[in-house]
Amino acid sequence: TSANVKGPKKDPLPKDEEDFLKAVFQVILEDGIRKGRDITQKVVDFHQPDELKTLLDLEIRDAPEDHQGLIKHMKDTVKYSVRTSHPRFFNQLFSGQNSYALAGQWLTETLNTSQYTFEVAPVFTIMENVVLHKMRDIVGYTGGDGIFCPGGSISNLYALNVARYRYMPDIKKTGLFGLPRLVVFTSKQSHYSIKKAASVLGIGTNNVVLVNCDERGKMITSDLEAQILRVKAEGAVPFFVNCTAGTTVLGAYDPLEEVANVCEKHGLWMHVDAAWGGGVMMSPKYRASRVRGVERSDSITWNPHKMMGAGQQCSAFLLKHENLLQHCHEAKAKYLFQQDKFYDVSYDTGDKSMQCGRKVDVFKLWLMWKAKGNQGFHQDMDAIFDKTRYLVEKVKAREGFKLVLDEPECSNVCFWYIPPSLRGKEDEADYKDKLHQVAPKIKERMVLSGTMLVGYQPLGNKPNFFRQVFSSPTVTEEDLDFLVDEIERLGEDL
Amino acid sequence: TSANVKGPKKDPLPKDEEDFLKAVFQVILEDGIRKGRDITQKVVDFHQPDELKTLLDLEIRDAPEDHQGLIKHMKDTVKYSVRTSHPRFFNQLFSGQNSYALAGQWLTETLNTSQYTFEVAPVFTIMENVVLHKMRDIVGYTGGDGIFCPGGSISNLYALNVARYRYMPDIKKTGLFGLPRLVVFTSKQSHYSIKKAASVLGIGTNNVVLVNCDERGKMITSDLEAQILRVKAEGAVPFFVNCTAGTTVLGAYDPLEEVANVCEKHGLWMHVDAAWGGGVMMSPKYRASRVRGVERSDSITWNPHKMMGAGQQCSAFLLKHENLLQHCHEAKAKYLFQQDKFYDVSYDTGDKSMQCGRKVDVFKLWLMWKAKGNQGFHQDMDAIFDKTRYLVEKVKAREGFKLVLDEPECSNVCFWYIPPSLRGKEDEADYKDKLHQVAPKIKERMVLSGTMLVGYQPLGNKPNFFRQVFSSPTVTEEDLDFLVDEIERLGEDL
Ligand SMILES: Cc1ncc(COP(=O)(O)O)c(C=O)c1O
Ligand SMILES: Cc1ncc(COP(=O)(O)O)c(C=O)c1O
Repeated sequence: TSANVKGPKKDPLPKDEEDFLKAVFQVILEDGIRKGRDITQKVVDFHQPDELKTLLDLEIRDAPEDHQGLIKHMKDTVKYSVRTSHPRFFNQLFSGQNSYALAGQWLTETLNTSQYTFEVAPVFTIMENVVLHKMRDIVGYTGGDGIFCPGGSISNLYALNVARYRYMPDIKKTGLFGLPRLVVFTSKQSHYSIKKAASVLGIGTNNVVLVNCDERGKMITSDLEAQILRVKAEGAVPFFVNCTAGTTVLGAYDPLEEVANVCEKHGLWMHVDAAWGGGVMMSPKYRASRVRGVERSDSITWNPHKMMGAGQQCSAFLLKHENLLQHCHEAKAKYLFQQDKFYDVSYDTGDKSMQCGRKVDVFKLWLMWKAKGNQGFHQDMDAIFDKTRYLVEKVKAREGFKLVLDEPECSNVCFWYIPPSLRGKEDEADYKDKLHQVAPKIKERMVLSGTMLVGYQPLGNKPNFFRQVFSSPTVTEEDLDFLVDEIERLGEDL
Repeated sequence: TSANVKGPKKDPLPKDEEDFLKAVFQVILEDGIRKGRDITQKVVDFHQPDELKTLLDLEIRDAPEDHQGLIKHMKDTVKYSVRTSHPRFFNQLFSGQNSYALAGQWLTETLNTSQYTFEVAPVFTIMENVVLHKMRDIVGYTGGDGIFCPGGSISNLYALNVARYRYMPDIKKTGLFGLPRLVVFTSKQSHYSIKKAASVLGIGTNNVVLVNCDERGKMITSDLEAQILRVKAEGAVPFFVNCTAGTTVLGAYDPLEEVANVCEKHGLWMHVDAAWGGGVMMSPKYRASRVRGVERSDSITWNPHKMMGAGQQCSAFLLKHENLLQHCHEAKAKYLFQQDKFYDVSYDTGDKSMQCGRKVDVFKLWLMWKAKGNQGFHQDMDAIFDKTRYLVEKVKAREGFKLVLDEPECSNVCFWYIPPSLRGKEDEADYKDKLHQVAPKIKERMVLSGTMLVGYQPLGNKPNFFRQVFSSPTVTEEDLDFLVDEIERLGEDL
């Protein structure tokens, strides 16, 4: 592949730069990966913001710094960062560290291109088509379209935007002025990104109707229908229903078949926010009971950077409809999407996007998928859901622990730890207030001791409880045993 | 930092996985970096989409693939990808490959966290504050706020959204229904992301007024003011003016002082889209003549992934106003932004964003900046603008080449190549049509020969011309000589 050019041969990678990159790789391998996954290391070496500022040398100066200094900065950055790859990091809806995804990420960064045209991203354009097609097959869409977005919130925003465009294509040109109120429906337990998107889109958060949920956190479809009728009676225009497949806190799956019936009846766009719980579509064992009917939706958000471990950022927005993404977003910029190119310009997919430059998010997912095969992901998803059962049983049986939901559906296990001082005092007036303070206090001690990380939050009128979530199939029963013991250790004197 | 945990010590990085990662690093170093920067290699080994599909093994199968197979896939991916790090890649508004930025990118991917809370991104939260503060200082804002966004288009969308919120905070809740038409002003030469954002926001592309430009591509402020008055007379509401500092095709800088006067007079939000040409703010030599008055704007988009070589994606949205980002976007999710944490929760900056999970884009920029120092960036920016002068003079003097603009302001050099068969035929009826076909044909041959990559496009009624852009300070005069010679070689028989 020599280009046979004239001109002096410059050294493309000078020795000292090569040495620097090799030293960087050592830091990544030893500090970032080996120590990052090492269970005997702390998950975080916590310092208060003001103290951390003094521990790091963040100031940028006039003069350059040398390689030694830069390596030191990299080591410090690792040292004071949270180890999200630690086996006992359960704090967010992502965790673990997959070597194949990571390899894909490094190479993506090295190749540094933008996903807008076949011209500058030939491999990744075709690869994105293959992977999105595969994901649509798994959902159960025939045909359709899709795009990788910078996160699930943006994917949800796409859903609202294309649904609105389909409802009335003129809105692209004329905006919402003079139109009747458009109204969006989503459950009380759904992710806040729906509201954020509605406000960005000029629809407004007041026009997001929060549908009631049952005690398990699932949307009540009779309430959905009642709200739709109410909104119509007010003269406003329902156009979009968001269902959640795996809610953020409780891990509930909305009843998709029932919602699909309502959407069909009223002619509404049905979107499924499976950002978190979408992985279950790859579990032979758990799929049917969780997402039956998902193929009846118009669109779906599915984040492989969450349960599938693909690394930030990797979020697919998939839809059943063809051409809609293109028509809704195209601006036909002539400097980028020239029509007189010498290849089939339908491979230039960038005008489907509301972005211009778009990071390549597909390669890491593709490489990991190649490495695991479909089988690997089937096993992983089964494993995650199986381990959830283990923890549920464990927490049920343990004194001082109380589940928020007896039968969680996703890998969220929400529970209270009730310290001995509060046991049997459920009827006292300040019980809830006191219990509310337990989780934050345990969390503080947890962070300071650095042994694990798990989140907590209140919900409605429920006092603060822990949300143990896991998204990595490598979590062991031992890790889950440790979790319970450690919470007890940290909180028993409270 | 040992956590002193009980439990068996698992091997955090098994030997075969370590070997795989080492092999990956070799591919990255040799194929991705050394060959990627090697001037004697092709910029692209082009194949038509259908052929490329047969050269790659993209299908994902049931069974896993072994390490050898995966390494082969990585090599193939590099082989058929465009080398954006090649010294003669001039096709987009990004190029080059900076080893420090790259090192930062790899480590960012390895640490895989999300920029929403201090809790999971302690170092990066503080680092983002430092870098955004520094960037605001360079712009000339005192105080203010900012956020890294997934690209300049999204940064421009933020600008419109916060400006609209400031104009009428109720829109967040009630949407645009029943309001008078809101109108946005931007120049005819501005980037299409303003229109895309206006349609996403429910404002509509018809409510984006395209202000006329002079022959150099700069916004004509008298036309801006005339349009503002016209719109007001129609009963609509002007609220936002976008200026461009470095237009996409011609590289024009809008007259910021003049626009600032108009915005002040009419009480409009002034945004500067410096996604492309923002780097000039770091050039002691060229700054004043390009962006005088930039500090009078309300907000700015500035993409270090373009002229500053930080790698996709790195785009800062900066604004002069405090609290606005937060108020405009906050949803106060209790599961993420708990207020009863044990550290100062003003460090949890995620609710300023319209995203939830947010990739860390700051570290690569910070590390590169540390490596170069302020001095390094000053020199780089001077170098880029100096080399532009070199190319301009060269093209001016060369037979068969004709500049679109005699004195380009940014590092865009736009020109026609006129093959011998067309010279002196400017007055013939089909001259323009014939000239229009020259650049696409040369481009085709260029891609197939793989010696370099440069873009072309038409503009208004101007036939296709080349846009030579560069964003890397390592481009040499020799590279620019080559460019001109090569276009001639590829096109002289046309
Ligand atoms: C002037 C201008 N603004 C905004 C953008 C959009 O930036 P991004 O590609 O990061 O979305 C571009 C991209 O070329 C541009 O040239
Ligand atoms: C159900 C659900 N939807 C959407 C999102 C948003 O995804 P992202 O963080 O990628 O924007 C989340 C994030 O936690 C989520 O839990």
